[in-house]
Amino acid sequence: MAFQIPRGTQDILPGEVERWQFVEQKARELCRLYQYKEIRTPIFEHTELFARGVGESTDIVQKEMYTFEDRKGRSITLRPEGTASTVRSFVEKKLYANPHQPTKLYYIGPMFRYERPQTGRFRQFVQFGIEAIGSHDPAIDAEVISLAMNLYNSVGLKKLKLIINSLGDHESRKAHKEALIAHFEPRIGEFCSDCQNRLKQNPLRILDCKKDSGHELMKSAPSILEYLNEESVSYFEKLKSYLTDLNISYEVDPNLVRGLDYYNHTAFEIMSDAEGFGAITTLAGGGRYNGLVEDIGGPKAPGIGFAMSIERLLAALNAEGYSLPLEESIDCYVVALGDKAKDRSVSLVNELRQAGLTAEKDYEDKKMKAQFKAADRLKANFVAVLGEDELEKNIITVKNMETGDQTEVSINHFISFIQESK
Amino acid sequence: MAFQIPRGTQDILPGEVERWQFVEQKARELCRLYQYKEIRTPIFEHTELFARGVGESTDIVQKEMYTFEDRKGRSITLRPEGTASTVRSFVEKKLYANPHQPTKLYYIGPMFRYERPQTGRFRQFVQFGIEAIGSHDPAIDAEVISLAMNLYNSVGLKKLKLIINSLGDHESRKAHKEALIAHFEPRIGEFCSDCQNRLKQNPLRILDCKKDSGHELMKSAPSILEYLNEESVSYFEKLKSYLTDLNISYEVDPNLVRGLDYYNHTAFEIMSDAEGFGAITTLAGGGRYNGLVEDIGGPKAPGIGFAMSIERLLAALNAEGYSLPLEESIDCYVVALGDKAKDRSVSLVNELRQAGLTAEKDYEDKKMKAQFKAADRLKANFVAVLGEDELEKNIITVKNMETGDQTEVSINHFISFIQESK
Repeated sequence: MAFQIPRGTQDILPGEVERWQFVEQKARELCRLYQYKEIRTPIFEHTELFARGVGESTDIVQKEMYTFEDRKGRSITLRPEGTASTVRSFVEKKLYANPHQPTKLYYIGPMFRYERPQTGRFRQFVQFGIEAIGSHDPAIDAEVISLAMNLYNSVGLKKLKLIINSLGDHESRKAHKEALIAHFEPRIGEFCSDCQNRLKQNPLRILDCKKDSGHELMKSAPSILEYLNEESVSYFEKLKSYLTDLNISYEVDPNLVRGLDYYNHTAFEIMSDAEGFGAITTLAGGGRYNGLVEDIGGPKAPGIGFAMSIERLLAALNAEGYSLPLEESIDCYVVALGDKAKDRSVSLVNELRQAGLTAEKDYEDKKMKAQFKAADRLKANFVAVLGEDELEKNIITVKNMETGDQTEVSINHFISFIQESK
Repeated sequence: MAFQIPRGTQDILPGEVERWQFVEQKARELCRLYQYKEIRTPIFEHTELFARGVGESTDIVQKEMYTFEDRKGRSITLRPEGTASTVRSFVEKKLYANPHQPTKLYYIGPMFRYERPQTGRFRQFVQFGIEAIGSHDPAIDAEVISLAMNLYNSVGLKKLKLIINSLGDHESRKAHKEALIAHFEPRIGEFCSDCQNRLKQNPLRILDCKKDSGHELMKSAPSILEYLNEESVSYFEKLKSYLTDLNISYEVDPNLVRGLDYYNHTAFEIMSDAEGFGAITTLAGGGRYNGLVEDIGGPKAPGIGFAMSIERLLAALNAEGYSLPLEESIDCYVVALGDKAKDRSVSLVNELRQAGLTAEKDYEDKKMKAQFKAADRLKANFVAVLGEDELEKNIITVKNMETGDQTEVSINHFISFIQESK
């Protein structure tokens, strides 16, 4: 009986996984420089957390969650995104009581959405995200955006487009919401049923609708930017000036809304501009969520963050034709000939590894030629040959595969010889 | 409304997460030296995979799985361990066709078992494991054991006990099974219902029973070691001699059985010997599974591996009173006084980070004293002060927090000054 991987999920195998490791390592390193600390929340949470934290009216909560009951009948959901869990932990573990604020956190891990699988879209995918909770200084908005841009730059992506918008504060949003209702209500019958539901709940999300994106009322819809109050305008201006200080180019798009309910002020998306990247061009998205912590039962604590999919980052790298600088060789392959030499090679390989060298030997009882071939395949920098003769003389023959030089070395000095020649 | 983390799971927070990162980094580094490559399989699999791959008669499959139906009615299970998924991928992705064998893989990630939570036992826990598939050379068994021991040693654990056993090959196990049935059958009524079921299915697992561990028949049960055929004896002898070559001490325990059905030949456990470590002393367990790949629909391919819980490794470190050497300071904190200086500090901090330095600033509009306090809390090596005066003169005052030395530096040379003084 053969078993198959669940639909919409993937195995990440050696040969491919190194690209993930590389990107994640860069992300961790950047977070260290920016002083974002890792948080690890569980893979699943109580379902109500996402209903509240992501928003009842979102596609995620309505259609895409992996929800099930545990053995005690509690409704549990595999996390569809990272912000709700992070904020739950911030509140439950009282991170707001730490004297050093804002609390700057990052996460890297699998998320789950039950969507129709397609190129670049998986049901299990990996998100890297950061959250800065506890400051409403627009400088932190700029920092968050800059960390995302820096990660893309540091892995070699060049064709990027940053789009920003302001969704304003509560007052601005209220005024805009009323204007949107007035704009769409007379002709709402021409829109899809989702949009009809959104009209009173959250008319902003009509602008996000894929089905009705061609409708003429979309283009003429009132822009949030016209409804920003003074404070919101000045917040947005400050953010833009910080981005300029940081040499980060951006475009303002008043239609940038984001799928999640809880954003205010800053919203942003980073897209790939690479040809042939396909339909899904958004690499990362984020924004400010000043009410979310309270919604989840915590104190007043403004927050901002982003999330990006590692799958899409790697796809964008492919589209730009850029390959990552991955190490592929090993330091030493030990070829052993005869039973005694084979036995001895077990501890020799172990000693090489103890000394911090990458080393390999044969475990298939291969002939000499096949062992050399294996060393070739592993791109060994040195091949050490141990036969009965060598064993008797307590030496080992070391071949430098780059220069072709061959040296007889005392077994006692073998490890240091490789270390020094490396 | 406040939300709680699901029972039996944990948030790993800054201050604690660094210990996990440290251990995982060590594990990854060791795998690199030993040439084990990472594989990432999905968090969930089709339920039948675990029923087949872990064993229908195991506690894991019978009682402890998080099993649910997806939206199409397929039975899905959160992975309770890593071997079945790894072997599924080995078969499905035809890793056996790679000319370089054995296939040496490692995984690090969350596993899920619905057990009663207790100290050191979580429903979601992290396992690090390796699998070497495609060789029946006892040298690879020794390598697998040595990697586990090396990881514990390299993070500083000293009080370790390695226990090994041989479960023999098919013929040896068959002879032993018959002897076990003959031993237990006459008095099986005195055993628990689980053991009664095990008698014909897998009597070896009776020896593993916690409820009946005190029964007098347990001690007198026939040992597998008496039933090993010649080949199995010589395999076990070879393994022991390799362990001796590698300076790894061990004890042979003929009652070491392991909970999973699929082991043969080598079985091993590594326990903590530290006082006060508590009831759960097993840190890692593993063994050889020569029939598993075929059971999962693949070709004949012998395998061996281990799995260890990171939670228990960290608990053992605590029990030994050993603390990990974790970095805690930052390179530079920029104190900014006045609006203009605050604005300028945004890009200065960014430049420090671009140069590979860890840097932080204030995002809460704090007074000077509070900013210095924040720098203290972050253990900043340098504090740079930027006020209106300094801005006008295009300088910045840098204080070396270790020596107390204070220097005025041109802003243009600020980054290189920190880099060089570091």
